[in-house]
Amino acid sequence: MKDFDAIFKGALDELHSEGRYRVFAELVRHCGHFPRARRLTANGEQDVTVWCSNDYLGMGQHPKVIEAMKEAIDHCGVGAGGTRNISGTTLYHVLLERELADLHGKESALIFTSGYVSNWAALGTLGAKIPGLIIFSDAFNHASMIEGIRYAKCEKVIWKHNDLADLEAKLAAADTNVPKLIAFESVYSMDGDIAPIKEICDLADKYGAMTYLDEVHAVGMYGPRGGGIAEREGLMDRVTVIEGTLGKAFGVMGGYIAASSALCDFIRSFASGFIFTTALPPALAAGSLESIRHLKASQFERVRQRESVRKVRSLLDQRGIPHMPNPSHIVPVMVGDAAKCKWISDLLLDNFGIYLQPINYPTVPKKTERLRITPTPLHSDADIEHLAEALHSLWSDCALARHVA
Amino acid sequence: MKDFDAIFKGALDELHSEGRYRVFAELVRHCGHFPRARRLTANGEQDVTVWCSNDYLGMGQHPKVIEAMKEAIDHCGVGAGGTRNISGTTLYHVLLERELADLHGKESALIFTSGYVSNWAALGTLGAKIPGLIIFSDAFNHASMIEGIRYAKCEKVIWKHNDLADLEAKLAAADTNVPKLIAFESVYSMDGDIAPIKEICDLADKYGAMTYLDEVHAVGMYGPRGGGIAEREGLMDRVTVIEGTLGKAFGVMGGYIAASSALCDFIRSFASGFIFTTALPPALAAGSLESIRHLKASQFERVRQRESVRKVRSLLDQRGIPHMPNPSHIVPVMVGDAAKCKWISDLLLDNFGIYLQPINYPTVPKKTERLRITPTPLHSDADIEHLAEALHSLWSDCALARHVA
Ligand SMILES: Cc1ncc(COP(=O)(O)O)c(C=O)c1O
Ligand SMILES: Cc1ncc(COP(=O)(O)O)c(C=O)c1O
Repeated sequence: MKDFDAIFKGALDELHSEGRYRVFAELVRHCGHFPRARRLTANGEQDVTVWCSNDYLGMGQHPKVIEAMKEAIDHCGVGAGGTRNISGTTLYHVLLERELADLHGKESALIFTSGYVSNWAALGTLGAKIPGLIIFSDAFNHASMIEGIRYAKCEKVIWKHNDLADLEAKLAAADTNVPKLIAFESVYSMDGDIAPIKEICDLADKYGAMTYLDEVHAVGMYGPRGGGIAEREGLMDRVTVIEGTLGKAFGVMGGYIAASSALCDFIRSFASGFIFTTALPPALAAGSLESIRHLKASQFERVRQRESVRKVRSLLDQRGIPHMPNPSHIVPVMVGDAAKCKWISDLLLDNFGIYLQPINYPTVPKKTERLRITPTPLHSDADIEHLAEALHSLWSDCALARHVA
Repeated sequence: MKDFDAIFKGALDELHSEGRYRVFAELVRHCGHFPRARRLTANGEQDVTVWCSNDYLGMGQHPKVIEAMKEAIDHCGVGAGGTRNISGTTLYHVLLERELADLHGKESALIFTSGYVSNWAALGTLGAKIPGLIIFSDAFNHASMIEGIRYAKCEKVIWKHNDLADLEAKLAAADTNVPKLIAFESVYSMDGDIAPIKEICDLADKYGAMTYLDEVHAVGMYGPRGGGIAEREGLMDRVTVIEGTLGKAFGVMGGYIAASSALCDFIRSFASGFIFTTALPPALAAGSLESIRHLKASQFERVRQRESVRKVRSLLDQRGIPHMPNPSHIVPVMVGDAAKCKWISDLLLDNFGIYLQPINYPTVPKKTERLRITPTPLHSDADIEHLAEALHSLWSDCALARHVA
């Protein structure tokens, strides 16, 4: 027998030597106390404030969501017990799909076990099944979209991130008669920049392309009903497929697409990643349903969240801590070095009780390692002050370039 | 703009005309009353008995599992709020991974959002990252394994289902120096047959191959602690990777691999489908943990389930209803025609309140459409009698070949 473990260990050694071996922080969240959590270490426990969660609005501990989930569990148990086709479809799944279709102003929606699987399965199936399809993919698209396109084995054209001129040049260069799809995101999660959706839709119309928009970091967060950036800008009807997650601002887990009935039925009928897997537990569907309904009506969380973001930015600015300017809720503080980034993150934890996971390759390109701050409506003014002060003191210690305004 | 919907509709029309367009039954399970459920139709509601669930032991409604989940929700809320690396790892995840490693007698385990994703990500990463790896894949492997191998883009050799001579011939034909992996299942879910694990491991040793065993339909069900067929046969230490699901006999949702620490750490560090997705909700990890622990100690559910299977087979035999002989808990009744299969299934529902989803292509090959009966410990003798009688009367109506013993 070959020594396979030696192969694995060799690859892991490389990660160690590059300073990007990942150690997961072990947390216990306290319901009702988020963003406070307990961190478990070899030496005992520590209270920390989480500053890097994608539970952007704290909906994961919202009493209504909790109640809805517990009620569903009492009512019908835990697992779905089957694939969607073989005994795994419950009323909650059906209601959730209707709610999502309504949220995005589409005829239909289809849920998946995660946002990752929804991108992989939907893009993969469209690309594999529409003869001759060319997918025009933004260079910064998420891994799940890239894998979906790779799965499809169709022709792929990568256009420069958010660059309309490059996209148009590439659309114009393709055969006018072949079917086309433009795949992109609204809020890019690591830089926090936002795509020019309207202009991309204009190009799609001009060149007869479908559009596929990942709103994973925007659903629940933007638009009067939390429909995302496309809702905010009145563009939902111009996008062919809107994809989202139930696991970030909605605080639960799962993914979905919203589109025409024919398109959703097509993916439902042909996508391996949809067909051959156990359905989401009914209780997750019930919790998501409640979360979406709440955020359709309530502006409270979104307004407070924006306020937190504004405060974080302003306190960082006062101290000259550079953060990437962007029009979204994500506050990336660039470090640009894997080891330094981990070092700051470790000190934030150990000396300040601040949990801010270092973001490194492959999540972001090498040399762009960063801290990614995600303020929530539940961070207090004191939390924000403490974060800014902690970064301030480490910034000097670490001799990082301060932003001179 | 091209009329893309016409493409989708065209493909769906084909499914309709082949009689294999899928209509999902809409169910409401009643906690405490499984396998009883309410089915929602356009014309109202109907009480049905579910006979096709993969919640094989009814653990999805076990009071301990329910309590564990609700407690976890009260304790720490709903979603994990991040990927495993970025704030999404909780104590429950860590404990669950330890429990799974222990269940399979391995150093380590790694959880994924589903069994599908675990196969896809683990096989995909091994195949893509081990230079020169050849994967020897059983011809009947599940879609998720096939997609993982396809993802890997490594060399793939398909061997005849459960055929040791063919596997050996193919192993012998390959270069002795290249790394090899044999991928197979223990219980094949649609035929219910079981792989000769020992003999496959012998071949693996002889040819220096790793083994990758999908025990999705066996975990919780076989072996003194529910470790699967490999546990029952004392072979767990001979298998390199054991893969399983939390969504079938364990009654929750999620997937995992158990293997050496180096292998698990390698997948953890390099698999896109593990890295770039929100972690399982802590409450699902807590529920799974409880379910696994219960089934490690309790034989009650397994013993009663086997009793149900024996009774179903015996009553079908008495009535000459042919079912595929196999050594597992799955009772497939072959129909061999998509339209007929759906017709029987519809009549079972409408006239007898029996829900038995027709299994058709692509889940099974065309012309092998079947009813797949999954008896649980919770089906009563009266339920079993009713099922056998219903099939008996339809079998005559439908002029299906009766098995003459
Ligand atoms: C842009 C984008 N799309 C999709 C996903 C996957 O969503 P999920 O976490 O629900 O799998 C993520 C992050 O996880 C993401 O950042
Ligand atoms: C053999 C096999 N492996 C893997 C899976 C996927 O597991 P999960 O339902 O947890 O995604 C299934 C069924 O769904 C299966 O039958």
